[in-house]
Amino acid sequence: GILERLNAGEVVVGDGGYVMQLERRGYVKAGHWTPEAAVEHPEAVRQLHKEFLRAGADVIQTFTFYCSDDKLELSGNVTTITGAQINDAACNLAGEVANEGGALVAGGVSQTPCYLKTNSETEVKAIFKKQMDYFLQKDIDFFIVEFFEHVEEAVWAVEVLKSSRKPVAATLCIAPQGDMNGVPPGECAVRLVKAGADIVGINCHLDPLTGVRTVKMMKEGLEKAGLRAHLMVQPLGFHTPECNIGGYVSLPEFPFALETRAMTRWDVHKYAREAYKAGIRYIGGCCGFEPYHIRAIAEELSAERGFLPPGSEKHGLWGAALEFHTKPWVRARARREYWENLLPASGRPKCPSMATPADGYQND
Amino acid sequence: GILERLNAGEVVVGDGGYVMQLERRGYVKAGHWTPEAAVEHPEAVRQLHKEFLRAGADVIQTFTFYCSDDKLELSGNVTTITGAQINDAACNLAGEVANEGGALVAGGVSQTPCYLKTNSETEVKAIFKKQMDYFLQKDIDFFIVEFFEHVEEAVWAVEVLKSSRKPVAATLCIAPQGDMNGVPPGECAVRLVKAGADIVGINCHLDPLTGVRTVKMMKEGLEKAGLRAHLMVQPLGFHTPECNIGGYVSLPEFPFALETRAMTRWDVHKYAREAYKAGIRYIGGCCGFEPYHIRAIAEELSAERGFLPPGSEKHGLWGAALEFHTKPWVRARARREYWENLLPASGRPKCPSMATPADGYQND
Amino acid sequence: GILERLNAGEVVVGDGGYVMQLERRGYVKAGHWTPEAAVEHPEAVRQLHKEFLRAGADVIQTFTFYCSDDKLELSGNVTTITGAQINDAACNLAGEVANEGGALVAGGVSQTPCYLKTNSETEVKAIFKKQMDYFLQKDIDFFIVEFFEHVEEAVWAVEVLKSSRKPVAATLCIAPQGDMNGVPPGECAVRLVKAGADIVGINCHLDPLTGVRTVKMMKEGLEKAGLRAHLMVQPLGFHTPECNIGGYVSLPEFPFALETRAMTRWDVHKYAREAYKAGIRYIGGCCGFEPYHIRAIAEELSAERGFLPPGSEKHGLWGAALEFHTKPWVRARARREYWENLLPASGRPKCPSMATPADGYQND
Amino acid sequence: GILERLNAGEVVVGDGGYVMQLERRGYVKAGHWTPEAAVEHPEAVRQLHKEFLRAGADVIQTFTFYCSDDKLELSGNVTTITGAQINDAACNLAGEVANEGGALVAGGVSQTPCYLKTNSETEVKAIFKKQMDYFLQKDIDFFIVEFFEHVEEAVWAVEVLKSSRKPVAATLCIAPQGDMNGVPPGECAVRLVKAGADIVGINCHLDPLTGVRTVKMMKEGLEKAGLRAHLMVQPLGFHTPECNIGGYVSLPEFPFALETRAMTRWDVHKYAREAYKAGIRYIGGCCGFEPYHIRAIAEELSAERGFLPPGSEKHGLWGAALEFHTKPWVRARARREYWENLLPASGRPKCPSMATPADGYQND
Repeated sequence: GILERLNAGEVVVGDGGYVMQLERRGYVKAGHWTPEAAVEHPEAVRQLHKEFLRAGADVIQTFTFYCSDDKLELSGNVTTITGAQINDAACNLAGEVANEGGALVAGGVSQTPCYLKTNSETEVKAIFKKQMDYFLQKDIDFFIVEFFEHVEEAVWAVEVLKSSRKPVAATLCIAPQGDMNGVPPGECAVRLVKAGADIVGINCHLDPLTGVRTVKMMKEGLEKAGLRAHLMVQPLGFHTPECNIGGYVSLPEFPFALETRAMTRWDVHKYAREAYKAGIRYIGGCCGFEPYHIRAIAEELSAERGFLPPGSEKHGLWGAALEFHTKPWVRARARREYWENLLPASGRPKCPSMATPADGYQND
Repeated sequence: GILERLNAGEVVVGDGGYVMQLERRGYVKAGHWTPEAAVEHPEAVRQLHKEFLRAGADVIQTFTFYCSDDKLELSGNVTTITGAQINDAACNLAGEVANEGGALVAGGVSQTPCYLKTNSETEVKAIFKKQMDYFLQKDIDFFIVEFFEHVEEAVWAVEVLKSSRKPVAATLCIAPQGDMNGVPPGECAVRLVKAGADIVGINCHLDPLTGVRTVKMMKEGLEKAGLRAHLMVQPLGFHTPECNIGGYVSLPEFPFALETRAMTRWDVHKYAREAYKAGIRYIGGCCGFEPYHIRAIAEELSAERGFLPPGSEKHGLWGAALEFHTKPWVRARARREYWENLLPASGRPKCPSMATPADGYQND
Repeated sequence: GILERLNAGEVVVGDGGYVMQLERRGYVKAGHWTPEAAVEHPEAVRQLHKEFLRAGADVIQTFTFYCSDDKLELSGNVTTITGAQINDAACNLAGEVANEGGALVAGGVSQTPCYLKTNSETEVKAIFKKQMDYFLQKDIDFFIVEFFEHVEEAVWAVEVLKSSRKPVAATLCIAPQGDMNGVPPGECAVRLVKAGADIVGINCHLDPLTGVRTVKMMKEGLEKAGLRAHLMVQPLGFHTPECNIGGYVSLPEFPFALETRAMTRWDVHKYAREAYKAGIRYIGGCCGFEPYHIRAIAEELSAERGFLPPGSEKHGLWGAALEFHTKPWVRARARREYWENLLPASGRPKCPSMATPADGYQND
Repeated sequence: GILERLNAGEVVVGDGGYVMQLERRGYVKAGHWTPEAAVEHPEAVRQLHKEFLRAGADVIQTFTFYCSDDKLELSGNVTTITGAQINDAACNLAGEVANEGGALVAGGVSQTPCYLKTNSETEVKAIFKKQMDYFLQKDIDFFIVEFFEHVEEAVWAVEVLKSSRKPVAATLCIAPQGDMNGVPPGECAVRLVKAGADIVGINCHLDPLTGVRTVKMMKEGLEKAGLRAHLMVQPLGFHTPECNIGGYVSLPEFPFALETRAMTRWDVHKYAREAYKAGIRYIGGCCGFEPYHIRAIAEELSAERGFLPPGSEKHGLWGAALEFHTKPWVRARARREYWENLLPASGRPKCPSMATPADGYQND
């Protein structure tokens, strides 16, 4: 199980971002980002699972992002397919692929429109309970509570899911400044652990180094409170230096012009190392993390993990595959120093480096 | 067939780039970029074919890039798999997927190491003949001669493939400055058409608007010579304003830090329109073109084509899917003017806009 | 006197940067930046004084930067000219020009090499005493203690100069992070006021908005301590977003490639308004502030001051002078919105937006 | 005289830009850029002459830019001062300063509004005749016909001024694309030399390397026509890679936000070397060239010239003055390689590298 691995000191590599990558592949609609593709195009979801597995992922998350009934209804994306059907199909796909590689299956639960609309603990918990019951009919290994902007709602999710007696990981999509109500990361972590979370951390919304920084603040909060938990980080695969609490949703480029902000594999090497140094042992990615980014985590930490992922058979470490390129100046790039120090040009001389994020998220 | 469609004035949407996208998915090794994945991981190749088809591609190219025996041997990537096996598997995959959507299958042939090593017409033509024979055992619709830096070698390929009596398209990876021997684009086009090519144009190496510019020069060359052919363009999906004859291979970011140069879908809209206005009717992409880029071609030209691609069911035109987003400032992006005028920031304040390309390609 | 004006609530406009501007004009040597030009080329110093006066400066500072004997000797720039001679000439020049426009003369004293070398209060104070005595032979209105990296040394300077019974302004070249010993801005201000400073603030080293932010911290420190003083700011005329405690000296561009960071006059408008809103009433500039930047302060605050500076006879407010340009698109720029919203391009596509500052200042 | 020096193979260093620098100092009004400061504030003009002389200029140009009566009247800047008075004062100032350093005095004549309004050779020539007569009452050494957008008008000016039997230099403010009527640089040069110009070249409007390129085209034109003349270049001190025929007037930053485009002294070193290598021997600057930029020309070519300018006493070559700086990382910059290779950051992460120039100049 996940806790055995983490308790043993292992590095657990997470998988990457599904909805944004499947949007680019043609199977998810931007905006509400609902996961009906698990039913409509299972081969596409299966293939992406396989790619993350091959890249070194130790966990395959069910493709159930934003899969609560209230969100599905609100989205308008789904008419003849139910949440139960999606959940069922997603668990099958994740399980099938995880099985091929000895990976764990994590059932994912995310924030609900109901919380913002009603703030009713009873109603919101009923939604999570329903999702949990679907998962428990399937063979999942643990739960991930992810993409929560309010720690209060995440705590409710943890409380429900802990009733299953399965391990629960909880990641908020928050900034170092805290959750949407201003609860600082350290305090968020304390509340989540007190609610029963075994693993805490952050996901999505901000870039990798900011994510690591936020998890460090969680760690410090836990230490001050005399609590213990495993740490986890699954950040954006984009550079977002100008963002804070609103995250990348506040960027002018969201969601259809983020290409130029994408991390290179070498950016991921730095991130994986920083995360490891911060004591984080569950290291993955969220939106923007493609299979080769996950492979970069596994490659950076191959000494600590003791092995390379299957996908590395098609990848020389630090560009080694270029050693026999026909152009001499490309051959000269088959080394770590070259890629570590390169500052990639954008090829876009009319574009700036930083944008002005919208700051309306507080009135929202 | 392809010529019937083009003769009828139809717009033919090509597919996107295979090797670079499959590298990111974990199935191709950068450097020699050989296509053994067709045998090793057919599900990965099949899935990418399906995504391009769904995005609107009218042609599925066989995944046979750099599949000549001399290249496969040189690469060191393949030991127990033969070129014949790859070719066979690739034709099966392309045919199977094309069949699902009424698309055509194009057998692709690319430049050979043998040409640079021997410059022997006999030896090089023997290689192309061998590849042609594999293809003719399968049910392909036409040939694409692509990624040739020297028009002389491309002419040889055309001459061989025309002996099959199937239509032949020929695209060079050249700049407006001409091929590696300095033969200008107009003259290249004339030679290719005289050799029998039914369709001529460019692919890879330079950005879309440069690609369109080069094809225009081909068109002018043909007109001056009193020749006629259909025009085709399958450029890079990256911004490369500082490159010329050496193409993107001469950029410091090649091949592992090109992310920041990637085109957005809106860049592709502009490209598709420019290509159409230039009289080009076979419009696709090469390295860097992902499924959503191909969909953008099909969406930009949906009025001319009379329909949207299947993948558009998951994509509101010009961001329309954002109309019901929860954040008001994101809802405000559900319109063409927003995306057309956006200059995306890189989020990388220490990176420049342009790089200094290597210029060693001439001594090579 | 200066205090009467400030006590009456007037806005006092300071002058700009001498050493860097005179370096560009050919009269100061970069590196030690000593002011021997007051003796060698009085016409050059006089002319720059006149330009600042004409731009709206209410104070003319004596050109005595780094004019302590130990610094002059260390610099190697001066052999036959003494500190006394420079001081004498500088006071004459400042007095002569100030007289032409009803401006005040401020005698400037800056940090000494002796402090770092000996940390001896006695020795350092003796240096300041000697400089003070020179000034008191001349007709100056008040003292400015400026460009101190350590508040301790600035306190010593204030203590010495207050013995003259003339008003003393004290500005540190520090960041929001505090002085070189880590004393925070609020605490620095308290110590300076307790030592007798009538006016406190910052100068040089960081960009205008950072300067205003630091002075706000000083203001808060004074308020908490129940102390009162006038506030002053004379920041860099360069954009330095990536700098902190080391200031612009830590930038790779220092001192010979700072052009591209220079503020426009419109940047200065924003700065002057922010400074005013922060309660600062002595507003000027340091290195990088040319006469037209000082004029921009006077123009932004012309309503509060009740008049425009003489130099505005050659300057339409907000570009009004372009109203009759021959090109229609230039005429369209004769308005505030245009210049307020313009993001000027650098014309340098191979240059990044931000640099990596040296961080060795702490070991130094 | 100027021709003796050039015939002897000497490098002649020109002076820099007056109007834009005096605008920043508070004495010239942007828009019409007229030179009434010669009468109103002679000390300011004299000082700038002195600075250019000290920086190494071999020629001092009279401050008579746009000083034809029709332009002065159109500008509205001048009411009680006549063109004759300005001309008189400007000649006195230039002569006085040139005398101090053995420099030559050049009387400058620029394009007239009359040309665009009437296109009358008689009327335009009458204006130049009147200006020439003023100059001939003074002791000038030669004429510079400068800032002409139409070669036709420049030819008329040359024809008039040659009647004085003094040497005439003629510089157009044109791009490699040619003058405003599309006459290419080579043809322009031929016409000017045939009209009597002893020296031809370009000034203003475009950046230094583009200026050198245009003068090379002039040289080739002359060679083809079997003509000979000395070559001259006095370009902008700004980077303008995106401009063509419209020049920097078409940039959104013109004229009040050009700071970020300013050349460093090291950019000028490269320019001076390129100009020298192109065979140009009269090398100076126009708008944006401050005294330290002129000094950089003189320093780059000090070996060829055999001496350093007086201003170099305050300037270590290639940053040598930093050798004794207190910070070790600044000391490390006292060498040529550092400054030659530095790509200066703008400190402006929301600003792009390139702008979109207005292109209305053709309808104008």
